[in-house]
Amino acid sequence: MQKFIYSFGSGKAEGKTQMKNLLGGKGANLAEMINIDLPVPPGFTITTEACNQFYKSGEKWPAGLEKQVDLGIKRLEKDMGAKFGDNKNPLLVSVRSGAAVSMPGMMDTVLNLGMNPDVINILIDKTGNERFAWDSYRRFIQMFGDVVMGVKHEFFEHELEAVKKKCKVKSDTDLDAGMLQEVVGRYMKIYKKVTKKNFPTDPKTQLKYSIDAVFSSWNNERAIKYRKINDIRGLMGTAVNVQAMVFGNMGDTSGTGVAFTRDPSTGKNVFYGEYLMNAQGEDVVAGIRTPLHIETLKKVNAKVFKQLMDIRKRLEWHYKDMQDFEFTIQEGKLYMLQTRSGKRTAAAALKTAADMVKEKLIDEKTALLRMDPQQLDQLLHPMFDPKAEKAKKPIAKGLPASPGAACGEVVFSAEKAERLATDKKDVILCRIETSPEDIGGMDAAKGILTSRGGMTSHAAVVARGMGKCCVAGAGDIKIDYKTKKFKVGNITVKEGDWISLNGSLGNVYIGKIDTVESTLSGDFTTIMKWADKYRKLGVRTNADTPHDTKVAVKFGAEGIGLCRTEHMFFEGNRIVAFRQMILADDKAGREKALAKLLPIQRKDFEGIFRALKGRPCTVRLLDPPLHEFLPHDAAGQKEMSKVMKISVSKIQDKIESLKEFNPMLGHRGCRLGLIYPEISDMQVQAIIEAALNVSGKGIKVQPEIMIPLVGHYMELKIARERADVVIANVFKQRKKKIAYQIGTMIEVPRAAITADEIAEYADFFSFGTNDLTQMGCGFSRDDAGKFLPEYVSMGIYDYDPFQVLDIAGIGKLIETAVALGRKKNKHLKTGICGEHGGEPKSVNFCHKVGLSYVSCSPYRIPIAKVAAAQAALGK
Amino acid sequence: MQKFIYSFGSGKAEGKTQMKNLLGGKGANLAEMINIDLPVPPGFTITTEACNQFYKSGEKWPAGLEKQVDLGIKRLEKDMGAKFGDNKNPLLVSVRSGAAVSMPGMMDTVLNLGMNPDVINILIDKTGNERFAWDSYRRFIQMFGDVVMGVKHEFFEHELEAVKKKCKVKSDTDLDAGMLQEVVGRYMKIYKKVTKKNFPTDPKTQLKYSIDAVFSSWNNERAIKYRKINDIRGLMGTAVNVQAMVFGNMGDTSGTGVAFTRDPSTGKNVFYGEYLMNAQGEDVVAGIRTPLHIETLKKVNAKVFKQLMDIRKRLEWHYKDMQDFEFTIQEGKLYMLQTRSGKRTAAAALKTAADMVKEKLIDEKTALLRMDPQQLDQLLHPMFDPKAEKAKKPIAKGLPASPGAACGEVVFSAEKAERLATDKKDVILCRIETSPEDIGGMDAAKGILTSRGGMTSHAAVVARGMGKCCVAGAGDIKIDYKTKKFKVGNITVKEGDWISLNGSLGNVYIGKIDTVESTLSGDFTTIMKWADKYRKLGVRTNADTPHDTKVAVKFGAEGIGLCRTEHMFFEGNRIVAFRQMILADDKAGREKALAKLLPIQRKDFEGIFRALKGRPCTVRLLDPPLHEFLPHDAAGQKEMSKVMKISVSKIQDKIESLKEFNPMLGHRGCRLGLIYPEISDMQVQAIIEAALNVSGKGIKVQPEIMIPLVGHYMELKIARERADVVIANVFKQRKKKIAYQIGTMIEVPRAAITADEIAEYADFFSFGTNDLTQMGCGFSRDDAGKFLPEYVSMGIYDYDPFQVLDIAGIGKLIETAVALGRKKNKHLKTGICGEHGGEPKSVNFCHKVGLSYVSCSPYRIPIAKVAAAQAALGK
Repeated sequence: MQKFIYSFGSGKAEGKTQMKNLLGGKGANLAEMINIDLPVPPGFTITTEACNQFYKSGEKWPAGLEKQVDLGIKRLEKDMGAKFGDNKNPLLVSVRSGAAVSMPGMMDTVLNLGMNPDVINILIDKTGNERFAWDSYRRFIQMFGDVVMGVKHEFFEHELEAVKKKCKVKSDTDLDAGMLQEVVGRYMKIYKKVTKKNFPTDPKTQLKYSIDAVFSSWNNERAIKYRKINDIRGLMGTAVNVQAMVFGNMGDTSGTGVAFTRDPSTGKNVFYGEYLMNAQGEDVVAGIRTPLHIETLKKVNAKVFKQLMDIRKRLEWHYKDMQDFEFTIQEGKLYMLQTRSGKRTAAAALKTAADMVKEKLIDEKTALLRMDPQQLDQLLHPMFDPKAEKAKKPIAKGLPASPGAACGEVVFSAEKAERLATDKKDVILCRIETSPEDIGGMDAAKGILTSRGGMTSHAAVVARGMGKCCVAGAGDIKIDYKTKKFKVGNITVKEGDWISLNGSLGNVYIGKIDTVESTLSGDFTTIMKWADKYRKLGVRTNADTPHDTKVAVKFGAEGIGLCRTEHMFFEGNRIVAFRQMILADDKAGREKALAKLLPIQRKDFEGIFRALKGRPCTVRLLDPPLHEFLPHDAAGQKEMSKVMKISVSKIQDKIESLKEFNPMLGHRGCRLGLIYPEISDMQVQAIIEAALNVSGKGIKVQPEIMIPLVGHYMELKIARERADVVIANVFKQRKKKIAYQIGTMIEVPRAAITADEIAEYADFFSFGTNDLTQMGCGFSRDDAGKFLPEYVSMGIYDYDPFQVLDIAGIGKLIETAVALGRKKNKHLKTGICGEHGGEPKSVNFCHKVGLSYVSCSPYRIPIAKVAAAQAALGK
Repeated sequence: MQKFIYSFGSGKAEGKTQMKNLLGGKGANLAEMINIDLPVPPGFTITTEACNQFYKSGEKWPAGLEKQVDLGIKRLEKDMGAKFGDNKNPLLVSVRSGAAVSMPGMMDTVLNLGMNPDVINILIDKTGNERFAWDSYRRFIQMFGDVVMGVKHEFFEHELEAVKKKCKVKSDTDLDAGMLQEVVGRYMKIYKKVTKKNFPTDPKTQLKYSIDAVFSSWNNERAIKYRKINDIRGLMGTAVNVQAMVFGNMGDTSGTGVAFTRDPSTGKNVFYGEYLMNAQGEDVVAGIRTPLHIETLKKVNAKVFKQLMDIRKRLEWHYKDMQDFEFTIQEGKLYMLQTRSGKRTAAAALKTAADMVKEKLIDEKTALLRMDPQQLDQLLHPMFDPKAEKAKKPIAKGLPASPGAACGEVVFSAEKAERLATDKKDVILCRIETSPEDIGGMDAAKGILTSRGGMTSHAAVVARGMGKCCVAGAGDIKIDYKTKKFKVGNITVKEGDWISLNGSLGNVYIGKIDTVESTLSGDFTTIMKWADKYRKLGVRTNADTPHDTKVAVKFGAEGIGLCRTEHMFFEGNRIVAFRQMILADDKAGREKALAKLLPIQRKDFEGIFRALKGRPCTVRLLDPPLHEFLPHDAAGQKEMSKVMKISVSKIQDKIESLKEFNPMLGHRGCRLGLIYPEISDMQVQAIIEAALNVSGKGIKVQPEIMIPLVGHYMELKIARERADVVIANVFKQRKKKIAYQIGTMIEVPRAAITADEIAEYADFFSFGTNDLTQMGCGFSRDDAGKFLPEYVSMGIYDYDPFQVLDIAGIGKLIETAVALGRKKNKHLKTGICGEHGGEPKSVNFCHKVGLSYVSCSPYRIPIAKVAAAQAALGK
């Protein structure tokens, strides 16, 4: 018969820590603590497999479970010298859930199980503590009624309040034994009224029902939601821990507490915890009495404190990690009720990891594997003061598009943002969506809020690149540019009003919230050094300006994986020349305008090459459709007409003629350079001339020219051949050469499946996973917000494929392309430059599929490095 | 040494018909005619391989060619008993091009080569025909000067005119020997003036230069263009035929002609041809004298006529095909100068194929393989009277989006088109682009003209489905809805003006052109019967209405492969209910509106099922984004607000909220049905209830429900499970069952590469190659017009991938999907329902990849059937 029950007690346990999947975290660690001789009340654990079978068979106990539970109880009775319902020494137990992954507070617990009218009298006799006995009984009825029978908690609370009012006492602790006896009477009536049944007096029946209830709580709504939010997958169910009760509420020599082996918020190696004397666990949490700092326990019970200090050390040495544990003191005797790996802030995670390696508790690899790479984001951006933020209620929620915190006055145009920023004002730029024209305003603003667009919308991508806080796609916010207001529910926010954004959570608040600047510790540097040591994947950055490049190099970027050239055309006066190029009637006109842009582009590239100090730089030739560069509003068109001395109607005609139904699939990428080769010519010339200029000053330059949006090998062949000619001309003219590479982005599905053909003309592939996801899955990233969140909740996609690479689909395209490409070109360099390059799961995939590097926005470099190291270490 | 020269003459030839690739069509057939003992002047053919090597080595003769030409000339001289420049019997030759595929008039020819001042005198002596000699000389100088040395034709014409004027004669034939001698003198001067060289007198030099010129003419602009237009690919170059001259201009017993073994325009089995006595070949074409009908030759020279009738029969029996041949009579003796397979109209192609099978000349398979499937289109649509059309010049050209011809008054709105059509007026609907709202107007119009959009734009797809003439994407036409005018160049066309469209050519004309209705012959039926006999691929149709279904069944559709349900919502009043559904605030509101639509949809399906008479029907659930159903202009919105009793601003808000950046990749397809399952529920219920109703009346119904735009197997799983429940409920309620299938369109690249997962939930795959091409190649079909034509001319894509399936890319996705799908589901039915289903090359691919069927618009069924049969016969 299958074994469903694992006992622990009397100094030995059937389970151990490694059996977490079967026994749940709590059960496995209770057993483990027994194994290392810590004082744990005896009990047994019903396996998660039993829960799994419970669900499989339509919420029935699997065959054999009942018998095994009986045996478990018998063994427990023997261990305790007590018996269920015994008239001398009645056994009382707790019934607690415990899955393999901690889900605090999500599932159900029943304490003090085994009580009934007979037992209560014996308990009074035994303890001489009448109040304790009645209080325990009433807690049991309430928990059992609520958890097992679904009698609403508030019904019980209502009765408790009634008694308190009647007896004119204020707090629960003021209720004496008699009053609590009345509470019990009232509870029983409520129970019967709601359930139409008497409260069960037989402890075995109580137990059976309670186990059922814990099993069922695995699939209650909040547990399901919790698992989804915390991305907990693939578990079988919850284990159930049945354990002899110990009581912290047996008087002043009893108590209960929670402690961490180190400070979970700073990571400092100090004992950290709280406790309450004469209390049960729930009282510590409830906040009715203020718990005391653990250090003060030294005075209350020096022996127990010493014992705890010893346990603290033993737990860490045993588990090799910071532990979070619960204990109860019953009449001066210490019992351990739980231990688990302690949750910690990013700063604490870095410090404990670094410290533990110094202490030789763990090695570097373990330290790295224990990091949550995503958490590092916390360290790199300013954050709100947590208390100040907690006091506020968000007026809207959007996507956490770019982490950090920001407050400022609301503005609705990029131009206004720039103007106010010049006056040293803090502004939040609010747009329905942003476009490349808004770059200046985005740069000037403290934060960006959009009402439309997803995690890879323009606003999100650009903001992350700038390391600037952004909340995107806050759909409840209705922005009206005309009246310069936005509405959300009944709230109206005018231009100039203050709002605050939390880009890590996607929250929008009214008013100002104090922010705390982040600083990077030496521990951060240490961990990064280790990551660099173990990772196999290169980590580059997506950067378009010398400034971003410098930031990225500071964060440890090993080069630029994606330098977008389009943003360069918006700065200052150059947009005029660029628009002249677009509006030119013929090639000659375009060439004239491009000639003006050439020296500007060359200077851009020189700045970036210098900032890179010898690292390679992949420059993508112009990618977006030309209409993105023209003003779409009347005012903008009028201004443009004035500056450029052309009629507004000519501008409008051009805009109309460039209009596209699906610009994503329109005239962009290499399609621009093939139809208007003079544009690519100018860019290629600028790149190579800049490279020659900078390398002439003793700085190594490794230019890599990237042809975007190739779908057919002929596109790359033609573009490459032309670029080679342009470059040869520059070399000839300058009488100097430099090594360069030409490659392509693989972002069109057709390119991925014909990568062998393309590889013959490419020195490198860079996977543009944003577009590859858009075309491969058929999702417009700007529109998918209407259904993708639903899709994720329906379980169609596990994650938003724009956030976490869709490995089964888009990943397959990448794998295919890498395999086909390498078959034809052994020296092919491969990288990824989509937004996924800084997302740990995606980085892991990139490692596994054997890419040469990932490229991500500067602020994600540390995340990518740690994720890459973890992947190399086999995570 | 490689053999470059193949001789023919003296009753034997080194070549034969099967050597077309090497000898070109003309050379191979000259040899073949010798082989079957027809009278052919001797000569030799220089191979296409020589031409190929000529280009490979930078326009130089390959090693050995010169020697072989010398040997060829020697053999020819021996055959003819004549010699180059001989003072008794000088050899004169023609030098003609001839590629493997006939390219009439595209490449160069030099006649009468070998003449010089000495030779002319001998010729006069020999023939006693001074005029003939000088005329031949002057023709030679002109051809050599023009073709070989690039002396402009008009320079020579100018001199000829001058002499005619001086001598006061009107036509060339009025010039006597003396006058022609003067012409020769003037020609020589012109020649020297332009070339700075004397005219070469050595026949060998003349020959060398002429061969060079023919080689070079392979890559002249018009030849390249011709090959592109006629899709001639993969040839090595042109062969060069050097052949002893025979003269049709040696007097009244000489002559020249062209004949067909059958009538090439009707296919009737009658001798068909024209000739002129005392003339050279070019005179027949030039139109100065009117050629005579071949039958009259019987009286002129009965012997030669009898010989021709005999040759006619022998050629057909030998070649098993209708032949088009050229002959010359020199002093009563017949010579054959060329034979080739005769070009014919679609009607003639059908008739000759059917007749030749009856005559046991060929078998059915050969007959089928000889058809040009695409040509069948000619038979199914009204056409302009060719002469009337030739007299007009198109004012604009667009894409030949849907074949046929139409004239009518210009209207600019669908609503106006419907109104005028009710008054029995012929209208042409002119739109920038069409949308589903325009369906009614498109149906009412005789033809459709759009200024934007490609071969698979909405207008094109719908028009083809209707069998209605359509010219799409005529970009030079600037339509202004406000003023109800369009401009093209300087021409302005107002509403009410007449225009004519040729949808087979993409031409737009001002005014009316007479049209000729097409009728289908018995031969058509015969060929279709044969196609049905040999093809392995099923042929279904794309049809959305009972009417289209009936047309398709008449054309032999074996079922519906794609029944789009969205068009159904535009008819009559149902759009109001549909819009109410879209505008509803909640599910209850949507369900209310859907309840109104249920009986209407059910009736739609009943009509289609009845028209199908037992054939299967794949119904696609709602696919387009909801905003396509809302009016986008102020007037439409106002009207809608009135009808629906909602404020205009609410309508505008909804339109705004549904707006998408890339609707192609937006909230459409199964994404609609998954987010608003009540829509799919209604459609599934309507389909199944209709099926039960119709099958209840004794007509078999095979409903196949198609879930569109699936990219992830979970989408299909959820949609399918829900549909199964809806269907089970209908069965339960109606106490009756019917077999049904549920499948999906494979149109998202991700679906293709994860087809194994999807196949577990699909009874069938239908490849939606329009969208698969859009997403796979990253081309918006509505926008790609801006660069795709350029892409095709640059040779990036061989064909517009929306017209001819991109086999290397999208084909690879299909192959992958079929293989993966069948691996998981052996019984998987596979089809294609994109526009490619009626295009011969794509149909061929579908056969090869093993699909179960293709589905195309009704008018393309015959094309698909013949293409499918050809594929099955190994084409």
